[in-house]
Amino acid sequence: MKDDASKEIVTAAVLVIGDEILSGRTKDKNIGYIADVLVAVGIDLREVRVVPDIEAEIVAAVNALRARYDYLFTTGGIGPTHDDITAESVAKAFGVPIAVDPRARALLLTRIAEKDLNEARLRMARIPQGAELILNKISAAPGFNLGNVFVMAGIPTVMQGMLDEVLPTLRTGAKLESVTLDTGLREGDLGTPYGEIQKRHPDVMMGSYPFFNEKGFFTRLVLRARDATKLSVAQREVEAMVERLRTEKKIGA
Amino acid sequence: MKDDASKEIVTAAVLVIGDEILSGRTKDKNIGYIADVLVAVGIDLREVRVVPDIEAEIVAAVNALRARYDYLFTTGGIGPTHDDITAESVAKAFGVPIAVDPRARALLLTRIAEKDLNEARLRMARIPQGAELILNKISAAPGFNLGNVFVMAGIPTVMQGMLDEVLPTLRTGAKLESVTLDTGLREGDLGTPYGEIQKRHPDVMMGSYPFFNEKGFFTRLVLRARDATKLSVAQREVEAMVERLRTEKKIGA
Repeated sequence: MKDDASKEIVTAAVLVIGDEILSGRTKDKNIGYIADVLVAVGIDLREVRVVPDIEAEIVAAVNALRARYDYLFTTGGIGPTHDDITAESVAKAFGVPIAVDPRARALLLTRIAEKDLNEARLRMARIPQGAELILNKISAAPGFNLGNVFVMAGIPTVMQGMLDEVLPTLRTGAKLESVTLDTGLREGDLGTPYGEIQKRHPDVMMGSYPFFNEKGFFTRLVLRARDATKLSVAQREVEAMVERLRTEKKIGA
Repeated sequence: MKDDASKEIVTAAVLVIGDEILSGRTKDKNIGYIADVLVAVGIDLREVRVVPDIEAEIVAAVNALRARYDYLFTTGGIGPTHDDITAESVAKAFGVPIAVDPRARALLLTRIAEKDLNEARLRMARIPQGAELILNKISAAPGFNLGNVFVMAGIPTVMQGMLDEVLPTLRTGAKLESVTLDTGLREGDLGTPYGEIQKRHPDVMMGSYPFFNEKGFFTRLVLRARDATKLSVAQREVEAMVERLRTEKKIGA
């Protein structure tokens, strides 16, 4: 897609950290949630990676993704056990020291009695130097923001609360408008003319999503653009194409 | 984890291809499914990436992942529309030509009348040179296997059928045995001693998964190993630790 010079594009990646996703034990629910939220505020999610609880893997992925996109959101690995190594890994990726942060320790003490603030729980207060905390209203242990990286919990409800905290601080771009068209046609019936319309409308992202049910195979088309006028011009062409193909195929309305 | 020399490790990555996942429009169901299947047959899923329908992104991800892992499984982007560019991109990643494959065309003709085999549908028969087809019993359009890369559909039921076709052809490693222990404890209560047990048992992967419900925060521990004896030794130590901590916390059985 060519971008309008007048409309800023803000990009993001998500890094899911955790053996439990790769083993299938936990089914990720964060990728789709974050995707929905970012689309809604006008940030383009461009890449997702899932890596295991291995420091070198996390460091490499954090550095690759933070260099390439405006924002990087990580989920998982910020709890109190030995396999929670996200904060240490992010500190290493940035080349900064990490230590117990007095602000984070104070947050933990709002929910944990001082006598229970053992070595394991204090791991949750270890924050890389220079990071800002991300409040966690559910279980106190904070996430943090360092540079363009936002480190959040893996438990979906906790992550969602952290994302709410973070969103107002983000720079957002022009929102994508979208229209969805149910065609009643098979993908193979519309592929060629639809591709020709796409060529004439490079500023409109034209997707095609097949599905099937007991009546057969069908296609839903999704058109997305930052410019509402361009979107509606392309939409009219696609609707005319669908109408023509349905007439040829003798498919009723 | 240190590996037993006697037990082979076979690794894999998954590459999900599609704007619809990154926009949140479609929630991925393939990652978790493939993870479950690979664990069951003794293949370690080590990394997942999600990339958009952009050729350069697909080529780069295919080449990075196929070089690094024993197997790469891709999902999505093999339909008949202009945004289905996986086959072309994989051909480019391998530096081989791509053309309509007579075997694939014949498969399409088992489900599609010759008069309907238009330019768009013939895209689904375009297969990189040297690839083997992966049968698709649901909608005929095949996936393919080139080198260590398995290219499958994005629609979950179609992908699952293709994975069934592929599985018997894969080299598999020693299966991971696993045990799950519900502790009734919070992660912060067990983090330090659990980490010490992990240090003594490098061949056992010891994970910790917090969750919460209306009664508070709790932790489930998952121990995984390829050697059943090592697993059960570690398990007994962890069970003794949980028992001791529960006694100290005066938590009933």
